[in-house]
Amino acid sequence: MTPAQHTIVAAVASRFGAKAAITDAADIAPWTTDWRGRYAGAAPAILAPNSTAEVAAIVGMAAAAGVPLVPQGGNTSMVGGATPPADGSAMILSLRRMNRIRSLSPDDGLAVAEAGVILADLHAAAEGVGRRFPLTLGARGSATVGGLVSTNAGGTQVLRWGTMRGLVAGLEAVLPDGSIHDGTAALKKDNRGYDLNQLLIGAEGTLGIVTAATLRLAPAIAQRGVAWVGLASPHAALALLRRIEAQTQAVESFEIVPGDSLALVLRHIPATRDPLSGRHAWHVLIEAVSASVDGEAPAALLERLLAPALADGLIEDATIASSEGQGDAFWKIRDSLSEAERAAGPAAQHDISVPVAAMPDFMIDGAAAVEARFPGAHATAFGHLGDGNVHFHVRAPEGADAATWYAEDAGVVTAFVNDMVVAAGGSISAEHGIGQMKVAELARLGSPARLAALRAIKAAMDPAGLMNPGKLVPLVDRAARP
Amino acid sequence: MTPAQHTIVAAVASRFGAKAAITDAADIAPWTTDWRGRYAGAAPAILAPNSTAEVAAIVGMAAAAGVPLVPQGGNTSMVGGATPPADGSAMILSLRRMNRIRSLSPDDGLAVAEAGVILADLHAAAEGVGRRFPLTLGARGSATVGGLVSTNAGGTQVLRWGTMRGLVAGLEAVLPDGSIHDGTAALKKDNRGYDLNQLLIGAEGTLGIVTAATLRLAPAIAQRGVAWVGLASPHAALALLRRIEAQTQAVESFEIVPGDSLALVLRHIPATRDPLSGRHAWHVLIEAVSASVDGEAPAALLERLLAPALADGLIEDATIASSEGQGDAFWKIRDSLSEAERAAGPAAQHDISVPVAAMPDFMIDGAAAVEARFPGAHATAFGHLGDGNVHFHVRAPEGADAATWYAEDAGVVTAFVNDMVVAAGGSISAEHGIGQMKVAELARLGSPARLAALRAIKAAMDPAGLMNPGKLVPLVDRAARP
Repeated sequence: MTPAQHTIVAAVASRFGAKAAITDAADIAPWTTDWRGRYAGAAPAILAPNSTAEVAAIVGMAAAAGVPLVPQGGNTSMVGGATPPADGSAMILSLRRMNRIRSLSPDDGLAVAEAGVILADLHAAAEGVGRRFPLTLGARGSATVGGLVSTNAGGTQVLRWGTMRGLVAGLEAVLPDGSIHDGTAALKKDNRGYDLNQLLIGAEGTLGIVTAATLRLAPAIAQRGVAWVGLASPHAALALLRRIEAQTQAVESFEIVPGDSLALVLRHIPATRDPLSGRHAWHVLIEAVSASVDGEAPAALLERLLAPALADGLIEDATIASSEGQGDAFWKIRDSLSEAERAAGPAAQHDISVPVAAMPDFMIDGAAAVEARFPGAHATAFGHLGDGNVHFHVRAPEGADAATWYAEDAGVVTAFVNDMVVAAGGSISAEHGIGQMKVAELARLGSPARLAALRAIKAAMDPAGLMNPGKLVPLVDRAARP
Repeated sequence: MTPAQHTIVAAVASRFGAKAAITDAADIAPWTTDWRGRYAGAAPAILAPNSTAEVAAIVGMAAAAGVPLVPQGGNTSMVGGATPPADGSAMILSLRRMNRIRSLSPDDGLAVAEAGVILADLHAAAEGVGRRFPLTLGARGSATVGGLVSTNAGGTQVLRWGTMRGLVAGLEAVLPDGSIHDGTAALKKDNRGYDLNQLLIGAEGTLGIVTAATLRLAPAIAQRGVAWVGLASPHAALALLRRIEAQTQAVESFEIVPGDSLALVLRHIPATRDPLSGRHAWHVLIEAVSASVDGEAPAALLERLLAPALADGLIEDATIASSEGQGDAFWKIRDSLSEAERAAGPAAQHDISVPVAAMPDFMIDGAAAVEARFPGAHATAFGHLGDGNVHFHVRAPEGADAATWYAEDAGVVTAFVNDMVVAAGGSISAEHGIGQMKVAELARLGSPARLAALRAIKAAMDPAGLMNPGKLVPLVDRAARP
């Protein structure tokens, strides 16, 4: 620990209590590595403030002393976004103790949640007042509001509700100089200059520390319907989605699953079965919901929407879940895709997006191009077709040695995939962010205008570079910074 | 014209043609004053590029020569946002020749429109492909896409579709150094760092020049229903809105009209009549729409929703328009409120917002506070209750001399109103922006954290201060800038 770090730790312990300054190496260790074990960092202390004022005080001290801080919630980043640098120069600023839901207003459809509130707890609190927070993802038992905001998280309900950006009605944050930005008032219209809330969403803690968010709540689900559809191509799937969108806003999820990925799930994941009897090159899982027990049931709606598509050959087969349990079974297939892919061998995974209309071609042509360029590799794409966002996985050739392939081939594959994404006008990070993992690729592929703007904004808001150093912004030359 | 200006004008005329460089004083004059005649500016030339590349070249030349530019679309700003400085130091950069709709995709629900496309033309183009661009406002015959984006415009459909921010799926802009930011790809998920599109929306041209936008289209309206409701208070109106929102998403407009404002309309605006036979302290206009000719008609929906509110006394009376013409007549009352208020005498107008839940109290208590503080003045608020945004007008006492009142009293009234807005956690600019008119009040009332961030971002992106100088950002000391 440097003298400057020691001074801050001592001041925090003395002013805010022992819980606010963790220095025991065993307590720190679990939080210095990402959950996938790809990044190993080091931190001499975890500072764990219990209020916005305490965060502001800590950030102010760190700014004065020139000590970097790495904000951390549930530490569930897919891109090393919450892991401190390996040199121990930064301290972790944990928001986990700030886990209060300050207010819940079902009438207004708003909740004000502190940064450390765990997503699953927010779900439960919203349900407790007859509402719902309509964003979910696999890490919901650990991921926190601050991290979800700072990474502009997505998930499986983006089709209807948008990403986190669409669900944030207000923000509170501590800026790099220790000042507090109070933007929690949920103003539907506010044109007082650059929208700082929007700037902080997805900034991965590099422009300040999100301490609380005002979040939109949706009506609770009274009924849902889940369909599993077999069809010939992603093109047919998109055409089906367009037909459905023209007729209803009740569809919240539209997830595409390739036939070979389904086969992997059936092989590797216990207690799964094919929802349809025949074989299909592609499938989609569709979920429709209703906030009312009256009116057309979502299952009936899905049946009504799918019948003509079956009749005119747009789709090959379809089944509607006849119970909640069967709907859950369909979702289990979708949610097991990554695990089944992992069981099948080493793979390079890519969280990418292209314009929705371009996605079917990208899925087919992109996979073919990868397999032509890397003989024996197997490329597959699945996920959020309706968002133009798929998880594009490239499996190593059968029998490849995992360590060798990851060390020598995976990076080349990733660069090839990212080049295709850029050529298609897409994004190399759809929902996971840049973190540490994608900084170099962003530097390689970002447009000069975008990169210059990112650097200028970062330098303006955090001139000393103390906020989550090494993440998101590809700095030209770190040593040259003031 | 300075030598630097002259050099740029000559280069533009030579490279891009005579139409691109307007120097005739008579042609320039109409564009140097805002439409309300409050701000008189001067400009030695209007530069009118015809493509993004031409905009980039002009901005690059201006940056190199240190010449400020004032971007302008339809020049319909309510806050002097498009009027050049009076000293003639800046040239106007008109985007009006960039008026192409580059693409229209009804399937994807997207249009790419250049900055100079007039809102009414965009409406017509969307209708031509069976869709709709769901934002409208009084100046739709002049206002352009670039201005609507740069001011994050609102209007009467924000309740359902959000402000311009919610309708922009992508942006193209020329940044202050002349580089082009191409963010027109409509990626639903894109987490590659700070969202430059979001930063440019509402930036009033102070961070660069918006040259095109990818805009979301909504389903066309097949049927609409319009209701006029009499009720006792804004509190009853908000309670009614909450009930309606819990049952339908078909309501796109919910506008509140005070009884005395209705009386002014009936007195001053020809061919208007009271939709209801009795007198009511407050009214709301509600519009519901349907994209389908099947299913429950919006008028029937409104009747079904209003009947129980009438039965249990939440509202006093209601009528549903029985024809398109009658619906238009209800809207004419709403749309004539400003004109009727003007006819009634000098007034200070305020475009303000507070959290929706706080708006009823603000409307009642705020008006009472103003009338207590300024004896004889009459305060009234009307408009977008469901957005937490009303137009808060304070009329001078009967018989007041207009010139004297505007010169001596209106500013004091405005400061008083703005103080109340800030105390209520609201915004002194809900939908009109800051422009020139509200810069001083933003400087007086903005939080130190917000003001510092605005200044830092402005200085980072536009270090020489050449983009729409004097607008939006309250600079501490212009002379001290590098």
